[in-house]
Amino acid sequence: VRKENSALEPSSLAILYRAYIDCLNRQDWANLGNYVDDEVRHNGRRLALSGYREMLVGDFEQIPDLRFVIERLASDPPLIAARLLFNCSPKQSFLDLPVNGSRVAFAENVFYEFKGAKIASVRSVIDKAAIEASLA
Amino acid sequence: VRKENSALEPSSLAILYRAYIDCLNRQDWANLGNYVDDEVRHNGRRLALSGYREMLVGDFEQIPDLRFVIERLASDPPLIAARLLFNCSPKQSFLDLPVNGSRVAFAENVFYEFKGAKIASVRSVIDKAAIEASLA
Repeated sequence: VRKENSALEPSSLAILYRAYIDCLNRQDWANLGNYVDDEVRHNGRRLALSGYREMLVGDFEQIPDLRFVIERLASDPPLIAARLLFNCSPKQSFLDLPVNGSRVAFAENVFYEFKGAKIASVRSVIDKAAIEASLA
Repeated sequence: VRKENSALEPSSLAILYRAYIDCLNRQDWANLGNYVDDEVRHNGRRLALSGYREMLVGDFEQIPDLRFVIERLASDPPLIAARLLFNCSPKQSFLDLPVNGSRVAFAENVFYEFKGAKIASVRSVIDKAAIEASLA
């Protein structure tokens, strides 16, 4: 029996992850299922692929200039860890903060656990303190 | 010329990082310099080893039951990414939140860049929203 999680080398998993981020930045929702598992979990919640897509579509509705930029990437299959940088203008509130169109810059440090070639679990932390500081 | 950052294999860097976390949990400040570079930076600030040690000593003063627990670890030299879990009772305020001795559970997703065998740069994000939720 082939061990599913050992299918990808670190460099291949990193390339796959960068393709996933490109898919998000293109808002190419028809292809999201190429990268995200049907039973995906996000911060402990069972979103499934449909709920994960809804979350992302909602993010782009609330933040029209949303763009994912990878600053750091550690690939250690079946894990990817990324530090993502954002520089964007949420239209209304964001993380319960009254952003209301202001430009905010912040990071997200996030772990992905892959099942084969698809993201099965995401554990994300957004730097809310940095957003608060930029609004102060 | 030997490329300094390629000195360690992923498994060796992970072992080294776990020894660093053990050093923190022992509050073994005399040995911190075995793991942390003299010129270490933390979230963009030049703390140097002395400032980094002062930050940690202060953390344990404010949070006497502080303990670092590794939940996830990705080793991709010269980077380590870790998801750390905390379950502790800060005595007073923490991240500007009025914790005042309440027990709070939260994660920190953190990247470390090693220079040789020592931590030279740290980029940390603490899940402040989770602490707010546990105080609500």
